[in-house]
Amino acid sequence: MAKKKLNVGMVGYGFMARTHSNAHSKVGHFFDLEYQPVLKAVCAPEADKTQAFADKWGYESIETDYRKLVERKDIDLIEICAPNNLHHDIAIAAAEAGKMVLCEKPLARTGAEGEEMCKAVEKAGVPNLVSYNYRRVPAVTLAKKLIDEGRLGKIFHYRAVFLQDWTISADLPQGGQALWRLDAAVAGSGVTGDLLAHCIDTAIWLNGSIKDVTAMTETFIKERMHTETGKKQAVGIDDACAFLAHFQNGSLATFESTRYARGHKALYTFEINGEHASIQWDLHDLHRLNWFDHRDESIVRGWRSIHVTDSDMPYMDKWWVPGLQIGYEHSFVHQIADFLDGLAKGKPASPTFREALETQHVCDAVLKSAKTGKWEDVSV
Amino acid sequence: MAKKKLNVGMVGYGFMARTHSNAHSKVGHFFDLEYQPVLKAVCAPEADKTQAFADKWGYESIETDYRKLVERKDIDLIEICAPNNLHHDIAIAAAEAGKMVLCEKPLARTGAEGEEMCKAVEKAGVPNLVSYNYRRVPAVTLAKKLIDEGRLGKIFHYRAVFLQDWTISADLPQGGQALWRLDAAVAGSGVTGDLLAHCIDTAIWLNGSIKDVTAMTETFIKERMHTETGKKQAVGIDDACAFLAHFQNGSLATFESTRYARGHKALYTFEINGEHASIQWDLHDLHRLNWFDHRDESIVRGWRSIHVTDSDMPYMDKWWVPGLQIGYEHSFVHQIADFLDGLAKGKPASPTFREALETQHVCDAVLKSAKTGKWEDVSV
Amino acid sequence: MAKKKLNVGMVGYGFMARTHSNAHSKVGHFFDLEYQPVLKAVCAPEADKTQAFADKWGYESIETDYRKLVERKDIDLIEICAPNNLHHDIAIAAAEAGKMVLCEKPLARTGAEGEEMCKAVEKAGVPNLVSYNYRRVPAVTLAKKLIDEGRLGKIFHYRAVFLQDWTISADLPQGGQALWRLDAAVAGSGVTGDLLAHCIDTAIWLNGSIKDVTAMTETFIKERMHTETGKKQAVGIDDACAFLAHFQNGSLATFESTRYARGHKALYTFEINGEHASIQWDLHDLHRLNWFDHRDESIVRGWRSIHVTDSDMPYMDKWWVPGLQIGYEHSFVHQIADFLDGLAKGKPASPTFREALETQHVCDAVLKSAKTGKWEDVSV
Amino acid sequence: MAKKKLNVGMVGYGFMARTHSNAHSKVGHFFDLEYQPVLKAVCAPEADKTQAFADKWGYESIETDYRKLVERKDIDLIEICAPNNLHHDIAIAAAEAGKMVLCEKPLARTGAEGEEMCKAVEKAGVPNLVSYNYRRVPAVTLAKKLIDEGRLGKIFHYRAVFLQDWTISADLPQGGQALWRLDAAVAGSGVTGDLLAHCIDTAIWLNGSIKDVTAMTETFIKERMHTETGKKQAVGIDDACAFLAHFQNGSLATFESTRYARGHKALYTFEINGEHASIQWDLHDLHRLNWFDHRDESIVRGWRSIHVTDSDMPYMDKWWVPGLQIGYEHSFVHQIADFLDGLAKGKPASPTFREALETQHVCDAVLKSAKTGKWEDVSV
Repeated sequence: MAKKKLNVGMVGYGFMARTHSNAHSKVGHFFDLEYQPVLKAVCAPEADKTQAFADKWGYESIETDYRKLVERKDIDLIEICAPNNLHHDIAIAAAEAGKMVLCEKPLARTGAEGEEMCKAVEKAGVPNLVSYNYRRVPAVTLAKKLIDEGRLGKIFHYRAVFLQDWTISADLPQGGQALWRLDAAVAGSGVTGDLLAHCIDTAIWLNGSIKDVTAMTETFIKERMHTETGKKQAVGIDDACAFLAHFQNGSLATFESTRYARGHKALYTFEINGEHASIQWDLHDLHRLNWFDHRDESIVRGWRSIHVTDSDMPYMDKWWVPGLQIGYEHSFVHQIADFLDGLAKGKPASPTFREALETQHVCDAVLKSAKTGKWEDVSV
Repeated sequence: MAKKKLNVGMVGYGFMARTHSNAHSKVGHFFDLEYQPVLKAVCAPEADKTQAFADKWGYESIETDYRKLVERKDIDLIEICAPNNLHHDIAIAAAEAGKMVLCEKPLARTGAEGEEMCKAVEKAGVPNLVSYNYRRVPAVTLAKKLIDEGRLGKIFHYRAVFLQDWTISADLPQGGQALWRLDAAVAGSGVTGDLLAHCIDTAIWLNGSIKDVTAMTETFIKERMHTETGKKQAVGIDDACAFLAHFQNGSLATFESTRYARGHKALYTFEINGEHASIQWDLHDLHRLNWFDHRDESIVRGWRSIHVTDSDMPYMDKWWVPGLQIGYEHSFVHQIADFLDGLAKGKPASPTFREALETQHVCDAVLKSAKTGKWEDVSV
Repeated sequence: MAKKKLNVGMVGYGFMARTHSNAHSKVGHFFDLEYQPVLKAVCAPEADKTQAFADKWGYESIETDYRKLVERKDIDLIEICAPNNLHHDIAIAAAEAGKMVLCEKPLARTGAEGEEMCKAVEKAGVPNLVSYNYRRVPAVTLAKKLIDEGRLGKIFHYRAVFLQDWTISADLPQGGQALWRLDAAVAGSGVTGDLLAHCIDTAIWLNGSIKDVTAMTETFIKERMHTETGKKQAVGIDDACAFLAHFQNGSLATFESTRYARGHKALYTFEINGEHASIQWDLHDLHRLNWFDHRDESIVRGWRSIHVTDSDMPYMDKWWVPGLQIGYEHSFVHQIADFLDGLAKGKPASPTFREALETQHVCDAVLKSAKTGKWEDVSV
Repeated sequence: MAKKKLNVGMVGYGFMARTHSNAHSKVGHFFDLEYQPVLKAVCAPEADKTQAFADKWGYESIETDYRKLVERKDIDLIEICAPNNLHHDIAIAAAEAGKMVLCEKPLARTGAEGEEMCKAVEKAGVPNLVSYNYRRVPAVTLAKKLIDEGRLGKIFHYRAVFLQDWTISADLPQGGQALWRLDAAVAGSGVTGDLLAHCIDTAIWLNGSIKDVTAMTETFIKERMHTETGKKQAVGIDDACAFLAHFQNGSLATFESTRYARGHKALYTFEINGEHASIQWDLHDLHRLNWFDHRDESIVRGWRSIHVTDSDMPYMDKWWVPGLQIGYEHSFVHQIADFLDGLAKGKPASPTFREALETQHVCDAVLKSAKTGKWEDVSV
């Protein structure tokens, strides 16, 4: 049975464009789907680098202006792997051109931007998705399943951290292609939009809406050379952010992220404690899930380390054999598989722009609270 | 050389009285000290149970009224292992009678009570100590040493949790000898004074003073049968508490404690992230310290799990051979050894009442912030 | 710069054919190489399944007889992902037809078979490689580097296990496409050739040649239904095998493998102890390497858990960013990258057939010793 | 109720005499027993050191000749904490004098010596025990309970190692009070009698008798200065020993011990794999037991880390509260508690001399096999 083709127009050629291109290349080898992505075009202002990327990944053509890309008749899906400040305009242009849109996280720099993007895709009626890829790490998907089955009982606590250590040196500049994440004008915020957004998305998915927050942020290095101006400029992003929260279901939460936690590369961990059971996960060993069930017989009760590689685990029937782990990149393969499957079934994959907007509202409340020093409600 | 005798008058015969009595019994077998404790008397209102305790541990006599105990000429040191609401009066009576005082933590129910206790021991000029025993777990003492040597560089982050799960059942009553920790009138507060006090004491010891905090508390079970009245009564304690903080040195902190974290018995962990190195410790494996040093050669850089059992580790020359672990009780042996050594050298062991009062002030600020919803400064 | 094409003819469409096809598909996206594999043909007796495999992976054509495949002018490289009993004939036919040969491990069922295969490829002068893929897990490659730099000093001990638990049920049949590994006629041996071969290959690579061995084997389930005959037949393979060994360098070793170790899916671990340092690795967390260096300062000495994801780690500059792990499949990508790079540079990748033959000789000695009950020298 | 006194005569004042004296001192504080040990006398040739030991631990008197000690009317129990070469004569003298005997492991240097000791205590009809203390680490006792309840089903595999690294330096001498373990004349053997004896005792206790073995030993440092002669002398002990074994129940085993495994202080681990479940234990974290049960629901199946501190765990109702660990020394407290309880109930604690003799026979077979290079049956 011949597959339907889904023509992809990729915006960006950086780290995230690689993860998405890899997902498109692999998905058909492992999943049986009605749709097969075709790497039609990649787009970025720098023609040379864009062409090199196209050659490497097999894109058929390049564009240097996203406005031209979104107008092309041979493109079905626009993927936004460009810096955060461009998400808004590209997404709206794509939607207005009737294209499906898959946007890297965070959806936008602010809730206000995000709201406009939601309206655009909803008005256009185009399928849309935000790439909160960690939902589709099998261990995390398994956590969702266990929670949704009610195995934890009433939830008391949620805690998450996302700890890195790559910006401790004061010599690191800000801005430019490599370091736009340190430039507030481009990134919107620091760890809040970059890292906590992941934590918040997972938390809402697993534990429901967040009601209110109180936060603190810090910028440890106050000035950094800007790669574009060559001058020392004030650093506008938050280097670190921590906040307390109440969920709508009455549970309490702590969240923390920083790029100054020596010894941690990308230590995203979460834990959720319920009346009957608890769950822990750690991105540094993403193929494991820790599970504690108080209903176990007491003398053999303990935290279980589940090696999430058996074929009855989410997505794992598609890969290798029990005991053999997959990695980070596979979460993107699962994401595109679900997106394509959603297209075929007319049931959109999550999180849509609208669903992901909630994370944006939490980020806004967090950043506001860090300024006011008070508890702030999350907009709905 | 004959040892000097230090006559001990113990108040209480519960869990903590056991840890202290054990420490007195053992210390001379493992440490070479000028002073040898003598278990002179134990005191509590219930004569039968007190006598049974005396028989078991070899106390020479009993008392049923602490006022009589503190007046006895043959007692040098009063140890307070009674519920929190009695600390204040006993300590002041002991000081006024010229006795040394060793008080279980927390020092008091409030900073105000604590301040009066400090004044009493200072006025009397008697040696005094608060039993924050975790300082003297060898791995924690090692952490202190590494930090004091400046190995971490500038400190960015501190995080600590103390997680338990023993009060999740709504059927658990409050009050009485076993469950006074759930009765606010006796305990003063819930997890804040009981568990976070430990976390705060260690944090101040390792990382200096805390400047301000913002906190949330929760009481998940609103009413519990009171064992004394036999009636359902409002629960006045905090079942859970989390707070954000700034240290005076500019570092950020998150603290959390709860008795509703399924799967954790006494999971006290802390982590401190500095410019060059980071440290982690976990009470559930108290004989290990995790250490990460960024100055290690990059291809062999990683978190080290230090098995703190070699004879060059703090206190460990007194025990067994490398690889053979000690446990919880030994922290109390080390504490009394340091107290006795301090007596001999005229250099008091830490934390004195005055030093421990700082933790009380942080607890007060935390509980206040949980009510006001604002950042609160820590009194000095 | 246009790449040279390397036309691949794959024999087999099972699990291993998938790992190799995936490696060919991905290698050009991540590595800059002179050669680009082209999936020219896949070959197996069952035309339907072979065609389905070709469709899924993009093979241009299929064959149903390997003799035809090896004769095709448009094929440069024959990859043998067929059951063990076919390795010998296919490899020799391929070599005689002047094709390069990449053979799944073990090289052969016996040393004698392997010797003939070596002679064939050497006579033909064709590049050849045996797929001991674990050498190219970055953490294992790092171990090799650390050992080769002499950091361990004199080696005293080597220990390895490969533990699985998938054949414990007596209801599992033997034979056929799925279960040929339980059929001695096809597989040659049980865990010895399947699992210990991996352990031995790594061991020789890291620690040099093995001198002699004493072994025991066991077949726990004596009879299993054969899927081809439908009858209960004696099980000829070893379900479990353990052996002691001396290396040529004077170090001692223990090796063990079984498919009856409840709780272990594919627990391949090795440890090597030297005068100065020790190394541990575990396939279940393949992205980590444990390292202990006695030359570390004593109070911070401990096992280090190295998260092998930084860009200065073997192969890791090709993948994502620090902290984000790769998985099992990537070892095959690295393998083909090294093979292609070896072609370009005229320096063959390891292990060649000849190098891999040594593992076969150790397996022969192990199986012989299990029968004689005596120490057996390894043939050279 | 007044307790019966059990008067102890201790032979030795070294490391093991400390563990036993500590056990006697503590047992009455934590266990309710009919008997209370009284530290009556300690005995060793060096009067000064013996007196110092007596002072520290509260022994009422000293002796310098064990023959006098065993004759004393006021002694009920002789404890042998002297080097291995003295076990035989002391035990027999004690038995002949009608004393109970508690002997440190290994029972003797050889099975022949041990056999004579068994006969002596049996002829005298005196209670006797060998101090294989690890049986009474609560996690190990729990393992025994789980196995005895049949939870593992048919057993397939047993593996144990005891790894140390303290004799790697060639500068370490042999002999004398501190290093008699390196002197074959005193110790009998090296790691086999010292460390493997522990592994074998536990193994037999948990998994039944061992049928036959094949072994290798190595002495890495061939000559060491002898502290008594001041001269370099041949080293007669085994620095390392590994062996394969069959148990009577059909399961297979690997055992290994060495003092040349860099990074391991006292890493005694065992694992047992059954049809349904598996167990792991590690002396370096002795308060935990790892448990895997295949009958768990598949999606939440994993190794459980049981923190063996709850009051329903073996011995743990005597100590602190859940989450608070005990250590190495407590295994000796449990041992003496069981011994005293056995006296009261007329049911001797295990292992008696006769039971411990089996370990001696396995050691003999291991050392014999290391010489013959063949499988050797274990004497019965």
